[in-house]
Amino acid sequence: MKDISLRLKEFERANGLEGALVECVPNFSEGRRKEAIDAIAASIEAVEGANLLHVTSDHDHNRTVVTLAGSPAAVAEAALCAMARAKDLIDLRAHRGEHPRIGATDVVPFVPVSGITLEGCAKLAWLVGELAWERLGIPVYFYEGAARMPERKNLADIRKGEFEGLSAEVRTNPDRRPDVGGPMLHESAGATVIGARKFLVAYNVNLRTEDITVARKIARAIREKDGGLPGVKALGFMIEEKKMAQVSMNLVDCDVTPPLKAIQAIRAEAAKYGVELAEGELIGIIPLKYLMATAAEALMLPSLGEDQVLEALVWKKGKDGR
Amino acid sequence: MKDISLRLKEFERANGLEGALVECVPNFSEGRRKEAIDAIAASIEAVEGANLLHVTSDHDHNRTVVTLAGSPAAVAEAALCAMARAKDLIDLRAHRGEHPRIGATDVVPFVPVSGITLEGCAKLAWLVGELAWERLGIPVYFYEGAARMPERKNLADIRKGEFEGLSAEVRTNPDRRPDVGGPMLHESAGATVIGARKFLVAYNVNLRTEDITVARKIARAIREKDGGLPGVKALGFMIEEKKMAQVSMNLVDCDVTPPLKAIQAIRAEAAKYGVELAEGELIGIIPLKYLMATAAEALMLPSLGEDQVLEALVWKKGKDGR
Repeated sequence: MKDISLRLKEFERANGLEGALVECVPNFSEGRRKEAIDAIAASIEAVEGANLLHVTSDHDHNRTVVTLAGSPAAVAEAALCAMARAKDLIDLRAHRGEHPRIGATDVVPFVPVSGITLEGCAKLAWLVGELAWERLGIPVYFYEGAARMPERKNLADIRKGEFEGLSAEVRTNPDRRPDVGGPMLHESAGATVIGARKFLVAYNVNLRTEDITVARKIARAIREKDGGLPGVKALGFMIEEKKMAQVSMNLVDCDVTPPLKAIQAIRAEAAKYGVELAEGELIGIIPLKYLMATAAEALMLPSLGEDQVLEALVWKKGKDGR
Repeated sequence: MKDISLRLKEFERANGLEGALVECVPNFSEGRRKEAIDAIAASIEAVEGANLLHVTSDHDHNRTVVTLAGSPAAVAEAALCAMARAKDLIDLRAHRGEHPRIGATDVVPFVPVSGITLEGCAKLAWLVGELAWERLGIPVYFYEGAARMPERKNLADIRKGEFEGLSAEVRTNPDRRPDVGGPMLHESAGATVIGARKFLVAYNVNLRTEDITVARKIARAIREKDGGLPGVKALGFMIEEKKMAQVSMNLVDCDVTPPLKAIQAIRAEAAKYGVELAEGELIGIIPLKYLMATAAEALMLPSLGEDQVLEALVWKKGKDGR
C-alpha cells in the first residue's frame, strides 16, 4: 500500500493537516474468532503512526469495535489495511449476530481530535471511500458529517435491510445504491459506511437515590430529543450493585454541550427532587480539549490552551527520549 | 559527556524512573549578552530527550531563567551541559545585577511532573551535584527537597552574602561551606544551588472591583503564612489597564492546594465583601495532572487518569508519525 500511503500524505499536505490528530472507530462484523480479530488489529498496528488504542469484541453482537488514533494519513491507511484484512477473513453470508450490519467492515467513522475540523474528516472519509472501492472493490456509503445526501445522514437509514436485504434491494432500487462503487454489494464483504462525526463522550452520573424514576425524569429533561441540551442523549438506569439511580449519557457534540454543562444541568434537575449527585463515571477515553475546557471553565481561564500544558509541549516536541 | 549520559541512564534504570517526566528551571547569572544566553540554551537543546520550553532574560536582574523538561537522565545531562557553558561564559567577578546570586549557574531545581516523586528528584539533584563538582569543579549546595541540613532548605539562607560575601566567608566559616566540593567557591563561576521542589503554578484571579484593599484582604486570608491554605503565597495588586484588583498567587504545592481549591477560597472570601470574580490568569505552564485534577473534581470523576486521555495514550505510544 506504499502508493496509497503517499496519496494520503499528499492529501494531508494539500489540506494543511500536518500535525493533526484523528480518531477512527471502525466496526467489524466478527466478535467471536480470536485469530480473525487479532489479524485485523495487527494490520492496524503495522501502520506507522497509527496507534491502536482499544479493541472490544462482543460475542452476541458478533462484532468488534476498534479505536485507533494518529495522523489523518496514518489512520486512513490503517483503516484501509483493516478493511482489506476484514474482506479476506469475514464472509457476511455466514455471519450471524444481533447487531445490524451491511459489511465485513461495517462502519468507519473519522473523528476530529485536534488540528482538523469535522469537514476535514469528511474529506478524509471521501478519499478513503474512493480508495476502498478502487483498491478493494468494496462499495461505500457516506454518513453523518460525510453524507452526500440528507437521507444518508443517519446510519440506521443506510443500514436498513442489512446485508441480506440491501444486497437484494440495490439490484432494483437506484436510491439505495452506494455513493461510491457498486452498484452491487460485494458478495462476501458487503459494503462499508464511512463518515465523519464528532467525538462521542460516554459520561454517566450516579444519583444519591434508589428511585429510578428520578433518573428517568432527569434524563428526559436534559436530552436533546425531548427539548433539552443539544448533543445530549440520555437514559435513566438503576445500578443495582451501587443501589443508585444513574443518568447515562452520550454526549455527541461536546463543543456545544460539554460534560461540565451536562453535569450542571443534571445537578439543577436533581435539586428539584431533593436529590444530590453521588459521582460521575467516564466510559472509555476523552480528548484532552474537553478536559481542558472543563478546567478552563472551573478556573475561569477562557484562553487556556494546549501550549500552556507542560506535557503537550514536551510530547509535541516529540523528542522526550522515551 | 557520553559517560555522564550513561551514568544518568543507569541512575534512571536503577531507580525505576524510565518514562518519568521531570521539569528543570535553571537560573543563570546573565541576562544581557544575547550570544551567551543563546549558547547556554543551545547546549540544552543539543541533548536528545531534553526539551527547551522557555527562556526568559531580565536585563535589570541580569539573569536568565530557562525551563526544560524531559526524562530525568536527559534533563540532568542538559543541566550539566548548560552549567559547563555558563562556567565558560560567565565571570561573576564582573557580574552586576539586582537579583541575588552565588553562581554563574545560580540555581537548578528539579521538579517532578509524572512518574517520579519529589524524593526521586532529590536523588537526581544529589547525583547532578556530585557530577558538577567531579567534572566541572563547581561546588554545590543542596536546597529545599534535596537539602541535607535543615538550615539549607531555604534558598535565601544559602545565598546570604551572595557570590562576593560567600566566597570570603567559606574561608573561615565551615558552616557556610558547600555540601559537595569546595570548600572554596569557584573563582569565576561561584557555586550552584541544586535542589528538588514541587511544580510552581502562577495563578492570578481578577476581581470585579477597583478596590485594592479587597484583594489584599483576600490574599491575607488565603495565604499560608497568615494561616490560610498550605502551599499558597498571595499578594493583592491593582491591574491598572483592566481597572481591576487582583489576587496574585504562587501555588507551590498543588497536590495539597490545587488551583480549583484556591479560586474557590478566593470566591468565598470575595463574597464577604460583595465582590465577584472576573477571570483567572495562568502565567506560564501547568502540568497536565493539575488540569486533570481540576476536571476530575468538576466532573466528579475521582479516578480519572491519564490512560483515559486520548492524546496521552497516543503520545505515550510515541508513534504518532509527527
